[in-house]
Amino acid sequence: MSADMTEAQGGWLATDQFQQARDQVPLVYLDAIPARVDPNGSVTHLGLLLQATSSGILNRTFVSGRVHRGELIRDALVRHLEKDLGPMALPRIPLAPQPFTVVEYFPDAEKTGFHDPRQHAVSLAYVVAVDGDCEPSQQTLELAWLTPVEAQNPDVLQEMTGGRDRLLQMALGYLGIMP
Amino acid sequence: MSADMTEAQGGWLATDQFQQARDQVPLVYLDAIPARVDPNGSVTHLGLLLQATSSGILNRTFVSGRVHRGELIRDALVRHLEKDLGPMALPRIPLAPQPFTVVEYFPDAEKTGFHDPRQHAVSLAYVVAVDGDCEPSQQTLELAWLTPVEAQNPDVLQEMTGGRDRLLQMALGYLGIMP
Amino acid sequence: MSADMTEAQGGWLATDQFQQARDQVPLVYLDAIPARVDPNGSVTHLGLLLQATSSGILNRTFVSGRVHRGELIRDALVRHLEKDLGPMALPRIPLAPQPFTVVEYFPDAEKTGFHDPRQHAVSLAYVVAVDGDCEPSQQTLELAWLTPVEAQNPDVLQEMTGGRDRLLQMALGYLGIMP
Amino acid sequence: MSADMTEAQGGWLATDQFQQARDQVPLVYLDAIPARVDPNGSVTHLGLLLQATSSGILNRTFVSGRVHRGELIRDALVRHLEKDLGPMALPRIPLAPQPFTVVEYFPDAEKTGFHDPRQHAVSLAYVVAVDGDCEPSQQTLELAWLTPVEAQNPDVLQEMTGGRDRLLQMALGYLGIMP
Repeated sequence: MSADMTEAQGGWLATDQFQQARDQVPLVYLDAIPARVDPNGSVTHLGLLLQATSSGILNRTFVSGRVHRGELIRDALVRHLEKDLGPMALPRIPLAPQPFTVVEYFPDAEKTGFHDPRQHAVSLAYVVAVDGDCEPSQQTLELAWLTPVEAQNPDVLQEMTGGRDRLLQMALGYLGIMP
Repeated sequence: MSADMTEAQGGWLATDQFQQARDQVPLVYLDAIPARVDPNGSVTHLGLLLQATSSGILNRTFVSGRVHRGELIRDALVRHLEKDLGPMALPRIPLAPQPFTVVEYFPDAEKTGFHDPRQHAVSLAYVVAVDGDCEPSQQTLELAWLTPVEAQNPDVLQEMTGGRDRLLQMALGYLGIMP
Repeated sequence: MSADMTEAQGGWLATDQFQQARDQVPLVYLDAIPARVDPNGSVTHLGLLLQATSSGILNRTFVSGRVHRGELIRDALVRHLEKDLGPMALPRIPLAPQPFTVVEYFPDAEKTGFHDPRQHAVSLAYVVAVDGDCEPSQQTLELAWLTPVEAQNPDVLQEMTGGRDRLLQMALGYLGIMP
Repeated sequence: MSADMTEAQGGWLATDQFQQARDQVPLVYLDAIPARVDPNGSVTHLGLLLQATSSGILNRTFVSGRVHRGELIRDALVRHLEKDLGPMALPRIPLAPQPFTVVEYFPDAEKTGFHDPRQHAVSLAYVVAVDGDCEPSQQTLELAWLTPVEAQNPDVLQEMTGGRDRLLQMALGYLGIMP
């Protein structure tokens, strides 16, 4: 939520109007799973962000955020990847708009198993190869590059909230690299 | 826009709030292209709705509409297909959430070539097999089942506005049946 | 292999030539995962075939088989689904050729984790809704309809060989229904 | 066919066996459409190879070829892209095995509209971003980078045989950039 306040151009009023929109309609979101890849396209590592929630709990997540009004999906992908990974990350934005899945986050944690207490969000999910140097933002404590095997360690999956542990496994299945 | 007024539960106020949301964020939309199919899955006909716009112009379109807050994508697909094709249409909702493409409609007709003067909409596009009897709603003047060849007739494509002629061709490409 | 002998039109010679082809090039295969679905497209059950291998071991598998020379993929899907599920199964063949994944089976079990001791096969994988009554063939001992939760029971996954336990999980991820 | 002779390790005998395989089963093929992309993933140009057929006719085509027995799809993609574009092309192999479409080429030109007089081939089609310098091989007369608009020029489409003009349009639809 703090991100939306930061982004709002008109300050308090804009954020208030955004809150009203959030109560009226589902939001368009993106989930981008950063990946290190071999020359033949094999994914060797996935990038997980270690973030502190507003209540101080640590959790691992992907690059994620909403699409602004008037913004292209591919520009929103660039914006969120740069915000979270820094300006030298050199993400390879997917060429086609078809996502590998669409995730439906609801305030009701039971509805789909994908949970966002703030809002109903419909998120287009992509795996994004990242070639450059990543400098996680201040909000992010750490960016960890984990092998597919490491990423599926129960300890890691447990640190992913809101269903992101399932999204990770869906991404691995899409990539053809399940355990 | 009339559809949103009809759907709004709180009348004038609700519609006003929806208008505010529409000015703040992109809306989550669906495009569903009805199809008649052979037993081996070959698409023989596509369903095009002939509708009159508020300014009295006729145009051909697909089943289309927004996802409500709190609503699953697959339930929104059922709702829109039943609204436009009647309760006996027996649509076969896709098993997986992955759309064949994502269409970005903007009030600025030049931005992507997909145009919606009312709003920025991000639309998940699906082809939906329809087995049953279709009774188009009053708002729809006619439902025409066209063969892929007929659907690509320049006269037909010309009656599709907002970029839907291109979406039709993208759907045919996805189905493997380009001219 | 017995299936190929049965199918071969020229008897011994044809099978011998097929064996030579198998030693020269990868074969085009299909994996079709049968599914029971709700009216809104939600998958409620997956169909697993219980088969006995030539060495007498029981294992669970999907509908699977090769594409013949001169045969359309969608016709091969119909043929294999009818062969394994009977003529009244009424499978809903996917409208588009895009598979949810491509599985690479190798005689070397380590290469991809997908293993076929007989051949290198490149298999297009689809989930196929099945509406009708299924009568498994003689070669199949049983067709079990399992819920997604039941299908992911470790005891069930253990009965799936050649990597099909992973393909099952990839299919569930594609369908948006991971545990 | 000359390519297969060149590649065959056992000379005449191997090629003869390959010819027998080709008469028995469909071959696993790849179509890779090279693309130049902007930092936000927008495709700016498509790469078309100008080749002379054995009968001396010029035609435009994509990078294309078969998957060898024992070879991973992603390694075959690298091999064919390097062979046709040179060792400095730096192709970005897709991360996931899901192709954007599957093309069925038949000796019978009427069957699907995709035609290969030599064989039945089932081809997985991908768009592949190419970052580096391309040096087309001797067999290729020219590599032309065309904008999507230029690539859809009727004169260009006419120079593409075997249905590749349609595959080009299917690729553009998948990329979201139809005319």
